[in-house]
Amino acid sequence: MSNNVIEHIQKNEENYLEELKKFVRIQSISSDPQKADEMDVCANWVRDDLENMGMEGVEIFQTDGHPSVYGEWKKAEGKPTILIYGHYDVQPVDPLNLWDTPPFEPDVRNGGLYGRGTVDDKGQIYLHMKAVEAYLKTEGSLPLNVKFLIEGEEEVGSPNLVPLIKGNLDKFQADVVLISDSHMFAKGIPSICYSLRGIVYFELRVRGTNSDLHSGTFGGAVINPANALVSIISKLKDDNGKILIPGFYDDVLALTEEEREMFKSLPHDDEKYRKELDAPELFGEEGYTTLERTWARPTLDINGIYSGFMGEGAKTVIPAVATAKISMRLVPNQDYRKAEEQFNSYIQEIAPKAVEVEVLNIHGGMPYISPMNSSIFEPAREALKKAFGTDTVMMREGGSIPIVTDFEELLKVPVMLIGFGLPDEHSHAPNEWIDLENFQKGIESMAYLYEGLSLK
Amino acid sequence: MSNNVIEHIQKNEENYLEELKKFVRIQSISSDPQKADEMDVCANWVRDDLENMGMEGVEIFQTDGHPSVYGEWKKAEGKPTILIYGHYDVQPVDPLNLWDTPPFEPDVRNGGLYGRGTVDDKGQIYLHMKAVEAYLKTEGSLPLNVKFLIEGEEEVGSPNLVPLIKGNLDKFQADVVLISDSHMFAKGIPSICYSLRGIVYFELRVRGTNSDLHSGTFGGAVINPANALVSIISKLKDDNGKILIPGFYDDVLALTEEEREMFKSLPHDDEKYRKELDAPELFGEEGYTTLERTWARPTLDINGIYSGFMGEGAKTVIPAVATAKISMRLVPNQDYRKAEEQFNSYIQEIAPKAVEVEVLNIHGGMPYISPMNSSIFEPAREALKKAFGTDTVMMREGGSIPIVTDFEELLKVPVMLIGFGLPDEHSHAPNEWIDLENFQKGIESMAYLYEGLSLK
Repeated sequence: MSNNVIEHIQKNEENYLEELKKFVRIQSISSDPQKADEMDVCANWVRDDLENMGMEGVEIFQTDGHPSVYGEWKKAEGKPTILIYGHYDVQPVDPLNLWDTPPFEPDVRNGGLYGRGTVDDKGQIYLHMKAVEAYLKTEGSLPLNVKFLIEGEEEVGSPNLVPLIKGNLDKFQADVVLISDSHMFAKGIPSICYSLRGIVYFELRVRGTNSDLHSGTFGGAVINPANALVSIISKLKDDNGKILIPGFYDDVLALTEEEREMFKSLPHDDEKYRKELDAPELFGEEGYTTLERTWARPTLDINGIYSGFMGEGAKTVIPAVATAKISMRLVPNQDYRKAEEQFNSYIQEIAPKAVEVEVLNIHGGMPYISPMNSSIFEPAREALKKAFGTDTVMMREGGSIPIVTDFEELLKVPVMLIGFGLPDEHSHAPNEWIDLENFQKGIESMAYLYEGLSLK
Repeated sequence: MSNNVIEHIQKNEENYLEELKKFVRIQSISSDPQKADEMDVCANWVRDDLENMGMEGVEIFQTDGHPSVYGEWKKAEGKPTILIYGHYDVQPVDPLNLWDTPPFEPDVRNGGLYGRGTVDDKGQIYLHMKAVEAYLKTEGSLPLNVKFLIEGEEEVGSPNLVPLIKGNLDKFQADVVLISDSHMFAKGIPSICYSLRGIVYFELRVRGTNSDLHSGTFGGAVINPANALVSIISKLKDDNGKILIPGFYDDVLALTEEEREMFKSLPHDDEKYRKELDAPELFGEEGYTTLERTWARPTLDINGIYSGFMGEGAKTVIPAVATAKISMRLVPNQDYRKAEEQFNSYIQEIAPKAVEVEVLNIHGGMPYISPMNSSIFEPAREALKKAFGTDTVMMREGGSIPIVTDFEELLKVPVMLIGFGLPDEHSHAPNEWIDLENFQKGIESMAYLYEGLSLK
């Protein structure tokens, strides 16, 4: 690689930022039916950018949901092919009042770009697009073959991605799949992720009566569906953080001693971590460290709960219905379909008979693990070290990218996860941001990586 | 009493309805700071009506909260004096989407008037105003002395009523206090209520971290405040409906055998009751009937609970905070201040240390009971029988009118509760309504009552 590529990247820092802002301004919330038009706008924006940078065969794949965007450059004969996957859709933005600046009006401050989707995943897919562009603009070619697949439904469980891949196996085939949708271990520590948690997400609906009731007139005669919901949820996990669903832990892959030692060697400080979160205490499953709990142990969390009166002041009502959104993070070798069955049948078992209980299976995704010493990781360690100037670490990630397992199974190739986010960048929460130094070094490191992989 | 009074009432049925609609249109939600202007509009409307009907000394008492309206007619020398108490404020209206017609656009259908406040308590105080008016318009006088005290803070616990009464003991003094803010036992069964439950109302706030967190990245490392809230609430009541707060039942007055027999003689049908509510099953404290549970046993209900993501679809978030509104109905001889202390100290005991828990004591009110055979009930039984054509029953009521005990203690006179609502009229819920036949017969029966009390 000539120095032109890196120089080009460094010269264009401001342009990249301005372009990323345009990307972030598009309100591509995939879970919100009212934003369907924005999803199309965003897919078109990605398509145009791929075309302008010199990718070929650029096209939008319509699906039963939101479209996916594809583009390729295949002129590096005899060289490996990488498929770069990312997503242009973002999480919802409420509670809106907790954002310091509006989620879709990107704002630069303290070395970061703030806005919904900046780190998850617009910034991280965009840095690949700019690394590829740097080659095409300076050298007119790439050191290897590149395919982009950028979808619009990652935040709702990618319901249409597997059918799309299955229908285009030849087109999407590659030697390795590359995804940047995860975190670095910490600022200044380039990282490669070798395992992800899976997820299974439910909505629990409890109905008591056909109408809200006066709690004086009726209190005592009927079950309160909010109390019933609380009773059900309280039986899902004990006060020590252990999940009580029968059989839930059966397939959990235990951590190896090697992993536990490696985790311990990483620069993690519980007290610093606690302070940053402003939590009174850290809390989790007994017998595990914080990194072990977040990376390699399953969890059960209420993501939302609502019933009855939520306004100011007091209202003496027995709600007619109560609803909770509950999800579990799964670890290798759990199967989200089995967890779904276990959850559903346990709920039926513990649900009070005086209410109607409905379980909706919202979505699920498999956990993922690849051998820590896989040979594909070597060029990546080198590339990251060149750009960031320090050794690369191997880590796990507590989040879920359900399609990682799908890529592995369908294309039968390894998946490489190189994240440029930071753990405190508030993805899925108000005030999401991306560190602009990581964004810029990310572009450089990917330029090095494409060269490194081509020499493999 | 000449027949003129009853004839006048019967001739004016349509006028009464049109006037009541005007009263209901005023959005007098006392708990909503944004409706402060409407509260003044409503107080002025009541004042004007009292003046127009011929009451004297009509005035608005300003308080630290919403105003109270007073008016009197004291020319029946040597005759008893009744103080008629009611309230012009109403409950909040959400969830708005469950109303078949807008809450402040009163709608007549199926023999009822629908709208917020129709039965609780605008319709019920208004029927007294019209009974008094009927005398003054036809006879030019009343058979006894009448005082009206109509406040605007009943739905928020009447925080300023006791100071007002204390400051005007002579002005408000009467031989009996008359309140219509409760239910008849059933349609066609005129009823006098001799006992009310008390109430104590809390808001429980749980904070975990300073921001919502990604449930993948952080799940397992911190307690989820929604799960913590659920764990706390699940320890307040067991699955058999028994409240677990230490000492909570200590002062509960047991039902007498006479009362239990009387309750059994009332025409109550559990299966019919269940069907009307469309509940899968009735449910309550073991060892008690439905009437006993709702009238004479304490309860604990979630009135509202909310945390995290409540939108459509899925969001994988660990909420930063979780909130619940919880109230308990108390029975004679419980004291809401003692219940408050018990609740607060029990919450501190069971709250997980990894979250911050705050308890707000929103309001409280004492339960009430008067001897079932008190002599003041006799003229009321007679008056109701004349208007409704059937025997009057003695009942309890599960709701709370905290100021009943205050009136009794401050004025040292009996309080008589004659309700014209029906149990299924959705007070405090969407689609509140008042049966128009009860409203009209209520006016007639009160005209009979004023005469009956004057002869006592």
